[in-house]
Amino acid sequence: MSDQKKIDLEQLRELDANDSLASKRVEFKIPEGLIYLDGNSLGPLPAGIEQRLQEMITQQWGQDLISSWNKHQWIDLPVKVGERIAPLLGAAPGQVVCCDSISVNLFKLLGAALQLNSPRRVVLSQQDNFPTDLYTAQGIAGLLGDARCQLKQVSSDALYDALDETVAVLMLTHVNFRSGAMHDMRELTRRAHDVGALVIWDLAHSAGAVPLALDADNVDFAVGCGYKYLNGGPGAPAFVYVAERLQQRVEQPLSGWMGHSAPFNFDAGYAAAAGAKRFLSGTPPILSMAVLDAALDVFDGVDMQDVRAKSQQLCQMFLGLMRQLELLPKMPCASPANDKERGSQLAFQHGDAFAIAQALIDQQVIVDFRAPDILRFGFCPLYTRFEDIWHAVHRLSEIVTSGTYKQEIFNQRGAVT
Amino acid sequence: MSDQKKIDLEQLRELDANDSLASKRVEFKIPEGLIYLDGNSLGPLPAGIEQRLQEMITQQWGQDLISSWNKHQWIDLPVKVGERIAPLLGAAPGQVVCCDSISVNLFKLLGAALQLNSPRRVVLSQQDNFPTDLYTAQGIAGLLGDARCQLKQVSSDALYDALDETVAVLMLTHVNFRSGAMHDMRELTRRAHDVGALVIWDLAHSAGAVPLALDADNVDFAVGCGYKYLNGGPGAPAFVYVAERLQQRVEQPLSGWMGHSAPFNFDAGYAAAAGAKRFLSGTPPILSMAVLDAALDVFDGVDMQDVRAKSQQLCQMFLGLMRQLELLPKMPCASPANDKERGSQLAFQHGDAFAIAQALIDQQVIVDFRAPDILRFGFCPLYTRFEDIWHAVHRLSEIVTSGTYKQEIFNQRGAVT
Repeated sequence: MSDQKKIDLEQLRELDANDSLASKRVEFKIPEGLIYLDGNSLGPLPAGIEQRLQEMITQQWGQDLISSWNKHQWIDLPVKVGERIAPLLGAAPGQVVCCDSISVNLFKLLGAALQLNSPRRVVLSQQDNFPTDLYTAQGIAGLLGDARCQLKQVSSDALYDALDETVAVLMLTHVNFRSGAMHDMRELTRRAHDVGALVIWDLAHSAGAVPLALDADNVDFAVGCGYKYLNGGPGAPAFVYVAERLQQRVEQPLSGWMGHSAPFNFDAGYAAAAGAKRFLSGTPPILSMAVLDAALDVFDGVDMQDVRAKSQQLCQMFLGLMRQLELLPKMPCASPANDKERGSQLAFQHGDAFAIAQALIDQQVIVDFRAPDILRFGFCPLYTRFEDIWHAVHRLSEIVTSGTYKQEIFNQRGAVT
Repeated sequence: MSDQKKIDLEQLRELDANDSLASKRVEFKIPEGLIYLDGNSLGPLPAGIEQRLQEMITQQWGQDLISSWNKHQWIDLPVKVGERIAPLLGAAPGQVVCCDSISVNLFKLLGAALQLNSPRRVVLSQQDNFPTDLYTAQGIAGLLGDARCQLKQVSSDALYDALDETVAVLMLTHVNFRSGAMHDMRELTRRAHDVGALVIWDLAHSAGAVPLALDADNVDFAVGCGYKYLNGGPGAPAFVYVAERLQQRVEQPLSGWMGHSAPFNFDAGYAAAAGAKRFLSGTPPILSMAVLDAALDVFDGVDMQDVRAKSQQLCQMFLGLMRQLELLPKMPCASPANDKERGSQLAFQHGDAFAIAQALIDQQVIVDFRAPDILRFGFCPLYTRFEDIWHAVHRLSEIVTSGTYKQEIFNQRGAVT
């Protein structure tokens, strides 16, 4: 400890002054005085949304009505928004569409992968994958039966060895929702391909937060959501990536009219559209999708390598201050120590994590509690300042050291009993 | 013809003056001068939406951020909106949730019905059902294979006789999207149950347009959309009805975290929520759903029997004027003659239906063309006036009689070649 330079507020202010992403903060409407470290649950409001939505509602829906499907290209939104997300994923055009939720999209991809890799039936995943991913795999396994689909869950450490020639598809979340641990996408994809398995990556905590290279890493399929680091608003539609080389021979089970090659012919027989578009199903929620479209403007001119560099520095400063204020013995870091192995978040363990989170929120530092004992801090370099880190850790220190959070526990128990 | 009283404009104006639903029109923002007969494609903008959305964006998302999931009950929206739709369906509380699209919801219901009625495997439907319903059945049949699911399509007339003890589930759209022909829901449901089949009704062209009695008619499952007669905006989320008696023993394949009994426990194993809530899957598009919620305000105090009475009278006047202006020999009505057998729309056949629709739209009468030769007029009694009918039919008459629509054909061909 003693050989590390002490972090002070001046130093953090200097980092802010020299931050090439600092100008992005004004593109968001962050409430005055709030330190928002929860963009990995819900990204904040981008400044351009209100105007875009006003135009959507008043002019497009209100005045132009049904004609807007063509006149204002509502019909093209799933592809258009997909194409805008693609560069953030390291994906060439023609491989990403925006639609539905992660859960629904995972079902499509699992159906597609199991069909491509039949008669293999094992879906390999990780024990602490995000629950909805596991539920979706359980759902398709329940529908298809054991003979056609089996979910196998192993610990993160055991994944590499569990990849054998029984595995149809490896389904993983790139950055763990709780710990922030990040898989080596390239290496696990390579290993999966070596044994003839396909891969589905869930990018919920990656897209917009860390650089991705789906094409270069030879990924088969991916999903991700629009409401975390893409700032698309509550429940914003999700996205699907399907590698170009698989598109023409893949079928997905949720075949709906928006994925038909000619939806307005109203043919009785399904004929899949060319390319990734066949992963569309029903009519998309246009208002929510248009908001995501507008939210993506904040990524104009942003280099994901700069985002990553700042994210790592924010995490390092946060951890450095936690060390400096001697908080780590009280609440150990549950994220990987090596910053190459984590996404853009940090997790800390404490038996009273829920109450501490509440106390922090009361002091204008917005974080997440994740059961059973995790306090989760998300860092979005587009609007988080280095100075914010200083205040967040100092308020946390005061809460933990003074024990004021115990009042939260009392209040809670009081409310329950 | 000669014994029928001639319809004149004064008479229609008098009907408007005495219309108990006339006051509802101001609850919509209909563009000045527009005759909107396309609410069965996209309902117009209800007057309260802009304010509600402004509050959602600026206060809830912008200021309260992640806390809004609880503070503003975003988490409850799928159930809340479902409960608001339920009375329009003749459904007691606890049976309707709002989520996803019709296509995705039909997949859930087909999965549920096939599981309940195993080992039966036939999904019986109608040849000219709305395509996405057929595509969804084709999708699940493709996934499950012939041994577990077969789609059988027959003509509308042959449905009753095709209902036999091989049928697992009868899947029909209540009001046909093209002709407006309306099935006898009670009778077909009774017949299906007599042979041990379950029923799934698609209410896309019924909900908010005709009175429904899902509970009294003993319906098992239903879906419908939010963007037609419910006026919830482009691509508004859909809804699912699951009869209370089936809820605890039914499973649906798209099991996602929003359908879990305790989503925020983040358990690795799926445990379905009680009741209809188990039909939720992923995170819902909150902005689109909140707009649908606000749109439902226009149904406050509305008796669906009044809506039906006015809808039938609007159709009768439209048909009467078509007769009076001698248009029917040129473009015969493709909807049932008996108004008890149709929904709230009329279809007419003409070889140049597309060009005629364009010419009508140019004259501020918004209608739909449905391939190959149908001109479709939808009547929403909450905002359509009897006087509108007069102008719509007179403009149509002028277009068809003068042949001006032929210029549209010329323009189109000119544009294509």
